[in-house]
Amino acid sequence: MKKPGGLFLIILLFICGLQLRAQQSLRPNIIVFLVDDMGWQDCSLPFWTSATPLNKRYHTPNMERLAKEGMKFTNAYAAPVCTPSRSSMLSGMNVAHHGITNWTSPAKDNNTDAKDDQFEAAQWNMNGLSPTAGVEATAYATVFPELLKQSGYFTIHVGKAHWASYGTPGASPYNMGFIVNISGHSAGHPQSYLSEEHYGNMPRKAIIQAVPDLEEYYDSGTFLTEALTLEAEKALEYPIKNHQPFYLNMAHYAVHTPIMGDKRFVQKYLDNGLDSIEARYVSLLEGMDKSLGDIMDFLKAKGVEKNTIIIFMSDNGGLSLAPPRGGAPHTQNLPLKGGKGSVYEGGIREPMIVKWPGIVKPSSVTDQYVIIEDFFPAILEMAGVRNYKTVQRVDGKSFVPVLKNPLYKDTSRLLIWHYPNKWQDQGGPGINYFSAARKGDWKLVYSLRTGKGELYNLKEDIGETNNLAAKYPAKLKELESLLGKKLQTWNAPMPLDKTTRQPAAWPGQTL
Amino acid sequence: MKKPGGLFLIILLFICGLQLRAQQSLRPNIIVFLVDDMGWQDCSLPFWTSATPLNKRYHTPNMERLAKEGMKFTNAYAAPVCTPSRSSMLSGMNVAHHGITNWTSPAKDNNTDAKDDQFEAAQWNMNGLSPTAGVEATAYATVFPELLKQSGYFTIHVGKAHWASYGTPGASPYNMGFIVNISGHSAGHPQSYLSEEHYGNMPRKAIIQAVPDLEEYYDSGTFLTEALTLEAEKALEYPIKNHQPFYLNMAHYAVHTPIMGDKRFVQKYLDNGLDSIEARYVSLLEGMDKSLGDIMDFLKAKGVEKNTIIIFMSDNGGLSLAPPRGGAPHTQNLPLKGGKGSVYEGGIREPMIVKWPGIVKPSSVTDQYVIIEDFFPAILEMAGVRNYKTVQRVDGKSFVPVLKNPLYKDTSRLLIWHYPNKWQDQGGPGINYFSAARKGDWKLVYSLRTGKGELYNLKEDIGETNNLAAKYPAKLKELESLLGKKLQTWNAPMPLDKTTRQPAAWPGQTL
Repeated sequence: MKKPGGLFLIILLFICGLQLRAQQSLRPNIIVFLVDDMGWQDCSLPFWTSATPLNKRYHTPNMERLAKEGMKFTNAYAAPVCTPSRSSMLSGMNVAHHGITNWTSPAKDNNTDAKDDQFEAAQWNMNGLSPTAGVEATAYATVFPELLKQSGYFTIHVGKAHWASYGTPGASPYNMGFIVNISGHSAGHPQSYLSEEHYGNMPRKAIIQAVPDLEEYYDSGTFLTEALTLEAEKALEYPIKNHQPFYLNMAHYAVHTPIMGDKRFVQKYLDNGLDSIEARYVSLLEGMDKSLGDIMDFLKAKGVEKNTIIIFMSDNGGLSLAPPRGGAPHTQNLPLKGGKGSVYEGGIREPMIVKWPGIVKPSSVTDQYVIIEDFFPAILEMAGVRNYKTVQRVDGKSFVPVLKNPLYKDTSRLLIWHYPNKWQDQGGPGINYFSAARKGDWKLVYSLRTGKGELYNLKEDIGETNNLAAKYPAKLKELESLLGKKLQTWNAPMPLDKTTRQPAAWPGQTL
Repeated sequence: MKKPGGLFLIILLFICGLQLRAQQSLRPNIIVFLVDDMGWQDCSLPFWTSATPLNKRYHTPNMERLAKEGMKFTNAYAAPVCTPSRSSMLSGMNVAHHGITNWTSPAKDNNTDAKDDQFEAAQWNMNGLSPTAGVEATAYATVFPELLKQSGYFTIHVGKAHWASYGTPGASPYNMGFIVNISGHSAGHPQSYLSEEHYGNMPRKAIIQAVPDLEEYYDSGTFLTEALTLEAEKALEYPIKNHQPFYLNMAHYAVHTPIMGDKRFVQKYLDNGLDSIEARYVSLLEGMDKSLGDIMDFLKAKGVEKNTIIIFMSDNGGLSLAPPRGGAPHTQNLPLKGGKGSVYEGGIREPMIVKWPGIVKPSSVTDQYVIIEDFFPAILEMAGVRNYKTVQRVDGKSFVPVLKNPLYKDTSRLLIWHYPNKWQDQGGPGINYFSAARKGDWKLVYSLRTGKGELYNLKEDIGETNNLAAKYPAKLKELESLLGKKLQTWNAPMPLDKTTRQPAAWPGQTL
C-alpha cells in the first residue's frame, strides 16, 4: 500500500479521460435544414387543424416522414424577409434589436429600401451581421456556430448565407463560426439552379448571385438543390468518421426566385394542370423535400441517425407577388393573409419540425408559438453548451422545454416583428412599414405609415380578416404599449417622415 | 495481489492513450508554399554558386530567412507547365505516367494544345487528375492530402488548384482530400489580383478565372496574395487550437499572368528604372514573399513554429514569353535557357527550400536533384504515414534522406520530363514537343518533332549552350534509351504525325 496516491491519480485521470470521450460522443449532431421563401402550407404536411387546399397541391413525403419522427410546430415564426431572419437565428436577437430589418444587398453600403413619398429610409444596419466590432452599418454579435465550434463541434455551412454585404466580414461563413463553407456568400438568391448554366457562372454573364464552389457539377444535369445535398453529405463524412459532433447549416437556395423548373419533378404538375409558373415552383419544393429525405437516408446509412437532431424551418413566408408567382397576387398562402414581406401570418408563419431521437416524442405536435431567434439558445442547449458569453443580449428563448413536453404552454410571451422598410413598390397586405406583436392568441398589426393598429385573435381568425381593434380597445392598447416599449428599448430603426423630419411614431405613442 | 490483471489493463490502456496522444501531437504540421510560374532566380536568394544579375534585381527577404532556417535545394525540378506539375505533386506520378502532359482547360473535354502543321494533338488526359475511377480523359490516382486526412491531418487548400476541368470531381479540392477549400477551382490563373475588381467577379464581366470565396475583401484594397494569406491564417486557427496536425496547401495565384502591380511594392522598382511590366512582375514576387514571412510570423505567434515544416516551391519555370513579360523573349531566366513551357532548365528548375525544425540543419544546401513527384512520398514520410495504399504506382522518391543528410548523393537516378504538346504558336527554346531526361550531371533534350537529341553537362554548362551529343554519342544513346523505355513502359502520350498517322518516335527508336 505504498504510494497509492500516484496509482489513484493515474486511474482517476484515465476515468476522466473516458468520461470526457463519452461526453463528446454523446453530444448530438445538429442539422438546421433551412428553406428559403417557403410558405407555411407549401407542403403536403398540414400545419393547421387539417389539410388545406394548398397542402393537397404539394407532395413532400420526407417532411411527413420527419414529422412522424419528431414534433411539428404549428405556430413557428420568422421575419417577413430573409436577412433579418437569418441574422436573428445566428445572433439570437430580435430583428428590431439587431436592426437588420431588411434584406441586405450583396454590395456594401447599399440601402435596399424602395423609394417612398412619405418616408425616408430608416437607418437600419444595411450591411448586415458582423462577427467583429466597428464595421459600419452592421450589427455586431457573437454567432452560435462560433460557440459550437469553440465547444468542439465541427461546423459546416452549405448553401445560402446572406448574412452581410461583400466587403464586410459577415459576408464569409468562415468568419461566422463555420469550419467548412460551400456556396455561402453575400447573395440572397441563385443566379441559376441549372448546371447547364453553371449556376450562373457563365463567362461575361455572371452576376454576384452566381453560385460559387460547385464546378464539379457543371453540365452534369445536377439541379442546384441536389448539388448542395451531395456537397453536404461529402462534408459530413469527415466529422462522422472522426466521431466528432457536427452542426450542419443546410441552407437551401430553393425555393427562392428565379422560379426555375426542376426537371425531375415539374412534368407531373404540368400534367395535373397547374399553371407553368406554379408547376415550376412545386418542382422546387419537391426537390427540396428529396434533399431532406436523402440527408435522412444518409444519416441512417452512416449510423448516426439516432444521435442527430434535425430542425426543419423556412426563413419567411411564401412569396405572394404575382408575377413572379402564378395566380392572383397574395392568394398563394390562403387562408393566411399576405406573403413574404408582410407581417400578416402569410409573411411570417413557418413550417417547423424538430426531430430529436430519444427526446422528442414521435408524431408530436405543439401549438406553442416560437420565433426564429429562439434557435440560438435552443441549439446551444441541445449541444450542451452552457455559460457561454456573447457580446449581445440574447432575446430568443430556447424551445427545448417544448420539445421535452408537448403540453408546455406559455401564453404570456410577447413576440415582435418590425419592418420599418419599403420592400416593394408593388406592396400588398401588411407589406412595407409595419410592425406586429403577438401575445397568447392576440396579434397586433401596426402600420408605421398611419400609426394605426389592427387587432386579431389568431385562434379564431387565422386569416386576420376580422379586425377587433374597436371591439377590444384595451387589448389593442396593451399590445401597442408593449410593442412600443420594446422598440424604444432597442432603439429600433424607424423611417423618417419627409415633411416633419421626425421618425414614425412608436406604437402607443399616438394613442 | 488479487486481480492485478484488471488494474494492469487499465494502466496499460491509459499509457497507450497517452502515447497515442503524444504521437498525435508530435506529428509535424506541413505547409507547402507553392508559387505559380516563379523562375529559379526570381528572388534575392541565390540558388546557384553565387548571386546572378536577376537575383540582384529582386528582394525576397523572407525566402532568405526561410533558407537560413532550412535547406536550399539547388537542383529541384518541376514540369514545364502547371497542371502536370500539380498533378505529379498530388499523385506522386511522373508526368509521362499520369499523362496530364499539358495545362488543363477549366472547361471539360477541351484540348488546350495549339494547332500544328506536322502533328495532331496527343491523346493526353486533358481533363486532369481524378480521385474517382472512370472519368473520361483523366488520370485516376490516390492523392496524398486524402491519405493525410485519413491519418488524422487537418487538410487545407488555399489558392490555385487547377488539377482538373469543371464537370469532373478533380475540379473541387473537397474531392482531393481537403477538409477546407478557399479559392481553389478549375482555373489556372486569377482574372484579377485586385479587390477593386472583386478579383474578377464584376457583374457581366466575370469569366471562369474570377477568384471565388473572397467577398469579404471586395473594395478593401487587399491584393489577392494578401487576401489568400489572411484566409490561410484564419483556416489554420482551428487545427492549431485543437492540437491537430495540419497540412496547408498554400498555393498562390502569384506570380502568374495577368501581371498586375501590387501597389505596396511596385513604385520602388519603377523608381529604380525597371520597365513597367517587370516592375509589376517584381511587385507580385515581393507580395508573395511577404505572404511567406507573414505565415512564418503567424506560426511563431501561435507557438507552432517549431513543429511546422515549410516546403517552398514553384510549379514551373519563369515565364519568358514577351509580351506578356518585359524585355526580349526568353531572356528572363538567363543564364538558364528558355522559360515556362520549355524542357531546358529555364522551364523546369525551381527555387526549393525546406524548413524542418530539429531535422534539417539551418542554412544547409543540397545539390541533389529532386522533382515535383517526390513531394508525394516525402510529405507522407514527414507525416509518419506508412503502409498506405494507392491505386497508382508512385514514381516519386522521398527527399527526406536528403533533408537528414546534406551530403546525401544519388547520381544514378533518372529524372524525366515529357511535353508532347504544343503550348504556344510563339514557341521558343525547348518549347513544344520535347522530352528530356537527367541522370547525374548529364541531360538529354529530345525533340519529338525531329527525333533528335541534344546532350548537356549541367555541371559545366547550366545554360545548355554546348551540345555534346556528337562528342559523347554513347552517353546520348544511353539517355535516349533510358528515356524511351520509360515512356514506352508508361505508354506516355505522343503526338501523331499527320502524314504517316504514326505517333512520334520514342527516343532511342530512331537511333
